[in-house]
Amino acid sequence: MVVVVNPDVSEEKIKYLINWLDEKGLDVRVFHGNKQCVLGLIGDMGKIDIDMLRSLDIVESVAEMEESFKASNRRLHPEDTVIDIHDGKAMIGGSYFALIAGPCSVESEEQIISIAKQVKAAGATFLRGGAFKPRSSPYDFQGLGESGLDLLRKARTMTGLPIVTELMDIRSLELFEDIDVIQVGARNTQNYDLLKELGQVKNTVLLKRGLAGTIRELLMSADYIMKNGNENVILCERGIRTYESDYARNTLDLSAVPILKRLTHLPVVVDPSHATGRVDLVPSMALAAAAAGADGIMIEVHNDPPKALCDGAQSLTPEEFAHTAQKIFKIREALA
Amino acid sequence: MVVVVNPDVSEEKIKYLINWLDEKGLDVRVFHGNKQCVLGLIGDMGKIDIDMLRSLDIVESVAEMEESFKASNRRLHPEDTVIDIHDGKAMIGGSYFALIAGPCSVESEEQIISIAKQVKAAGATFLRGGAFKPRSSPYDFQGLGESGLDLLRKARTMTGLPIVTELMDIRSLELFEDIDVIQVGARNTQNYDLLKELGQVKNTVLLKRGLAGTIRELLMSADYIMKNGNENVILCERGIRTYESDYARNTLDLSAVPILKRLTHLPVVVDPSHATGRVDLVPSMALAAAAAGADGIMIEVHNDPPKALCDGAQSLTPEEFAHTAQKIFKIREALA
Amino acid sequence: MVVVVNPDVSEEKIKYLINWLDEKGLDVRVFHGNKQCVLGLIGDMGKIDIDMLRSLDIVESVAEMEESFKASNRRLHPEDTVIDIHDGKAMIGGSYFALIAGPCSVESEEQIISIAKQVKAAGATFLRGGAFKPRSSPYDFQGLGESGLDLLRKARTMTGLPIVTELMDIRSLELFEDIDVIQVGARNTQNYDLLKELGQVKNTVLLKRGLAGTIRELLMSADYIMKNGNENVILCERGIRTYESDYARNTLDLSAVPILKRLTHLPVVVDPSHATGRVDLVPSMALAAAAAGADGIMIEVHNDPPKALCDGAQSLTPEEFAHTAQKIFKIREALA
Amino acid sequence: MVVVVNPDVSEEKIKYLINWLDEKGLDVRVFHGNKQCVLGLIGDMGKIDIDMLRSLDIVESVAEMEESFKASNRRLHPEDTVIDIHDGKAMIGGSYFALIAGPCSVESEEQIISIAKQVKAAGATFLRGGAFKPRSSPYDFQGLGESGLDLLRKARTMTGLPIVTELMDIRSLELFEDIDVIQVGARNTQNYDLLKELGQVKNTVLLKRGLAGTIRELLMSADYIMKNGNENVILCERGIRTYESDYARNTLDLSAVPILKRLTHLPVVVDPSHATGRVDLVPSMALAAAAAGADGIMIEVHNDPPKALCDGAQSLTPEEFAHTAQKIFKIREALA
Repeated sequence: MVVVVNPDVSEEKIKYLINWLDEKGLDVRVFHGNKQCVLGLIGDMGKIDIDMLRSLDIVESVAEMEESFKASNRRLHPEDTVIDIHDGKAMIGGSYFALIAGPCSVESEEQIISIAKQVKAAGATFLRGGAFKPRSSPYDFQGLGESGLDLLRKARTMTGLPIVTELMDIRSLELFEDIDVIQVGARNTQNYDLLKELGQVKNTVLLKRGLAGTIRELLMSADYIMKNGNENVILCERGIRTYESDYARNTLDLSAVPILKRLTHLPVVVDPSHATGRVDLVPSMALAAAAAGADGIMIEVHNDPPKALCDGAQSLTPEEFAHTAQKIFKIREALA
Repeated sequence: MVVVVNPDVSEEKIKYLINWLDEKGLDVRVFHGNKQCVLGLIGDMGKIDIDMLRSLDIVESVAEMEESFKASNRRLHPEDTVIDIHDGKAMIGGSYFALIAGPCSVESEEQIISIAKQVKAAGATFLRGGAFKPRSSPYDFQGLGESGLDLLRKARTMTGLPIVTELMDIRSLELFEDIDVIQVGARNTQNYDLLKELGQVKNTVLLKRGLAGTIRELLMSADYIMKNGNENVILCERGIRTYESDYARNTLDLSAVPILKRLTHLPVVVDPSHATGRVDLVPSMALAAAAAGADGIMIEVHNDPPKALCDGAQSLTPEEFAHTAQKIFKIREALA
Repeated sequence: MVVVVNPDVSEEKIKYLINWLDEKGLDVRVFHGNKQCVLGLIGDMGKIDIDMLRSLDIVESVAEMEESFKASNRRLHPEDTVIDIHDGKAMIGGSYFALIAGPCSVESEEQIISIAKQVKAAGATFLRGGAFKPRSSPYDFQGLGESGLDLLRKARTMTGLPIVTELMDIRSLELFEDIDVIQVGARNTQNYDLLKELGQVKNTVLLKRGLAGTIRELLMSADYIMKNGNENVILCERGIRTYESDYARNTLDLSAVPILKRLTHLPVVVDPSHATGRVDLVPSMALAAAAAGADGIMIEVHNDPPKALCDGAQSLTPEEFAHTAQKIFKIREALA
Repeated sequence: MVVVVNPDVSEEKIKYLINWLDEKGLDVRVFHGNKQCVLGLIGDMGKIDIDMLRSLDIVESVAEMEESFKASNRRLHPEDTVIDIHDGKAMIGGSYFALIAGPCSVESEEQIISIAKQVKAAGATFLRGGAFKPRSSPYDFQGLGESGLDLLRKARTMTGLPIVTELMDIRSLELFEDIDVIQVGARNTQNYDLLKELGQVKNTVLLKRGLAGTIRELLMSADYIMKNGNENVILCERGIRTYESDYARNTLDLSAVPILKRLTHLPVVVDPSHATGRVDLVPSMALAAAAAGADGIMIEVHNDPPKALCDGAQSLTPEEFAHTAQKIFKIREALA
């Protein structure tokens, strides 16, 4: 780490700072510029509070020489992580691409099984569906809960597709024991106690980027899980909050895909449905995600008549999904 | 609610939509413009998914005629909420102003008691201090935990100041039974299961705005608590994430103060310390918050020597705090 | 346009508002909800100041029923605009795809001609290069100016590639008479006097989205040009300013491509070089742009040795560009 | 400047980079950490393109040791700049506070003179009013133009108040010769050719922060003016574009006031009217700006009946302005 000291700071104050860093067990090397002084720090940076250091009046800036995330850092683990669900039932990472599809919410047995069969036929390798739903309003439908999980299990039995579903409350964790992939939603990306707990289970975790989360925060949150023992983490870009919200719910940040692929060995998937919130944008953003190098794409598919009528919502119909899936596969072939 | 239908949509599709809304139990009134059609909806909007409606292809836009938050809505509760901690030990809301001060983290008995005495002498009416700390890195200090709560209790006994401290894990809730004000941090503003649980306790809750949370989301989160029975909620503006982060950690959104005062009856406090992350900005932003009409201000105060030396971090020294408190009181007098 | 009136507004005030709108020549239709009143306005909305209307205390919200942009609006002009540069020398829009390449700045005759030949060989259909450079610091290199334009003309003569270059100062317009495509940079997107002037020339204009410009503002700026008579406008997505800037300069907003394709008939190009500011992100973002349906892609290509050494900056080497161009063409074939 | 080199970069590449920096005339000092290498650069940083350097693959990060702005930098000019309009007619900066008031647009002689008299009586020290209006839509009213300037001159003659009005088109500059303060609007903050031209006139310039401009960019734009010879520059915070726009047009960034006061010697004013776009937020934000230490506040005041009726728009009535001005003066006294 490099600390740039403000100009005009007295020698005495600089010495005091060096002593303080020294007492923390860091090796401090001093470099004098023409007007300013720079300190190079070597050792375990975990011993100091970098934010505190940065905010000191005598400090102009702090440049970290190593990324603060570790378990997820590609430098320490250059090979791509490949996650294998139940002995090859489905894989993701490295050369394995995952197409994850299903409804926003599980509504009924008929609904989830029908969609599961259709998305499988179209090439999906995972079934997604929400049983516990995070809703910004307490007055809105909160999901079927435990019985929704049972319906997902039935759909898995019928189709063989591994299931992806969201865990909201740390106290429900035991209900998820046989869930293939536990999703952590954008509002829980920094729910650290939940992440620590997920570090101690065997399920794969699909970790969504926060509503306005940085890439670094996403990797730090992955580290919360991995540091506690669970290395099966999939990262998910799902749109970020920006000033532009007139025509799409969030701004899909596709540059996060190549950035994450460089910084980490973990698989990266993209969720164009939640990012855009509009069905007419989902197909083109799914294709763009494939072209950008995503390891997987997660798409909402629905068969509800009023939505179908209106060509609507953020969910594609099964037919539209099949059409989009074909194009995704063509792009992957073209770039292979 | 008003639904503006896209131009060029067939009559048949519009009828289908009207029928669907009708079946949901809403009273639908149709208004034909020269090119477009507008639907006025009357009834319980909780029955339909507004996001879904908005994302339909045939819908151009949806204007909600009533705010979606209810329990916290000033229209339904015009009088200011005044929260009374332990029979007048401290009050906030209406004409009662709260000055909340203390260290970021509780570190030792000596530290917390010393600071508590000093901030009380300077006019603080609440003591804050973190026992459980949300840290973006799993490799950083996570707080003293349960023993930190004990130290806060000791400081309360010594000074009589009610205490404010953060709850992170829903499973620790019973440890907080006698904590005067439970803080919900910015990363948990939309941790709905935690909020629901806090709706069933008697503690006052200080709810921080999310890292990039909207004002509406903050009020909806307050509703999650209030709907479950706990009406003692304080809202806290603590800076929002914007593109400008070179000179301050976040952008303090002071316009949120008059906006919230208009929309809700709940007390509104401002935290300039976390918003700016820089001690040199805290005093002027605290004064601005007072001038903007905040019901309270929460300021970090520390007595750690290296920080004191460096005039640094986001914490004021007790002397700086006393100086700022004097000016806050002068502004409140000037505007009385 | 629909105006939702606040609840609890007196009948008298509503009448006053209706009279005022009526006097402006609008046809006002009143719709009474259970608690609120809604006004439907028909007529020329240009006669009233919508922002003013929206900010009135008695108005809750204003929903515009028609998009405020007109000349660029696809509803009024459903067919794709195809722009033909010098009788088919190069075309863009509809089924014509443009690959625009060249250095950030024109530096020397040797440089620009060498790059022009190489990018042409790799499939580029336009040559770009900056002669007048907008630099945030007045102490930085400001471009070669007029002699830079001459070097571009030479490169055009040598290769036949039409040229794209930026105009900054309205007073230099006459120097650009024979420039095929005049670029308006992100800092000038709302320089309305410049836009009006460009509405009176015959050059094609490539209009970049503002640094933090909305999609609607981009279309309104296009209207400033088109309303004054010049319909040859190309829109360019070049990244938007967001809170995430650790790993890329801006956030490339690829969802703007399908959104713009739906809203307007004008061609849409993407500039991944300026959006990301990092060469390692340019190829994947160029491919994603192609998959998202862009009508053109603009890529910086450089042959400067220090940059080449360091595989660096936001510019690809000619070899890297050729490689990326091949993949772009493959994606377009796969999706054809 | 400090350049942190990526780990695992070959010695050969580092040498090549050092040579290249050396050839640019910089003094390069090398510092080897345990895994990475850091270069300290001394000399004229204007010789290299920092963005280019930052984007090199072998560079991890670049920490600038000195701020890139110079003429406006307080380090190089520690005393507050005090601007004196016409021999003490009005002053701003240091201990002089400016209250700038007037209508958004000049509409008629009666209007502007009536408002000018009223705001002067309430304590305003400058009259503002727009003659040339930047409108995002080409279909909206664009201002009275030259005749508007004449009306402002009449109001100045009648009241003695110096006038502040916006210049949009560089070609109109000669019309502004006797205008006391030329305003550069948010859309022109980075119109560099306009700024250069303003560096060569004698008028004071009020430079607004860009719509989503950074603090550093604002100071660099001030440098564009000052470097060309005009040191009478006033900076203006006017709200920034963020994701939160439901209840206010922009987010007023009041922390920019103390930040700017530390970074620069130039006077800093705040415009709460444009920042919020809502009259009900203007008074509290004006008071907050005063408490935050602004050198001046600019407020829109209007006497148009429909607006007055509706208590509306972003403009206060003259009575409301007088009331707010009283409170501003009280806050300044309280903090004196």
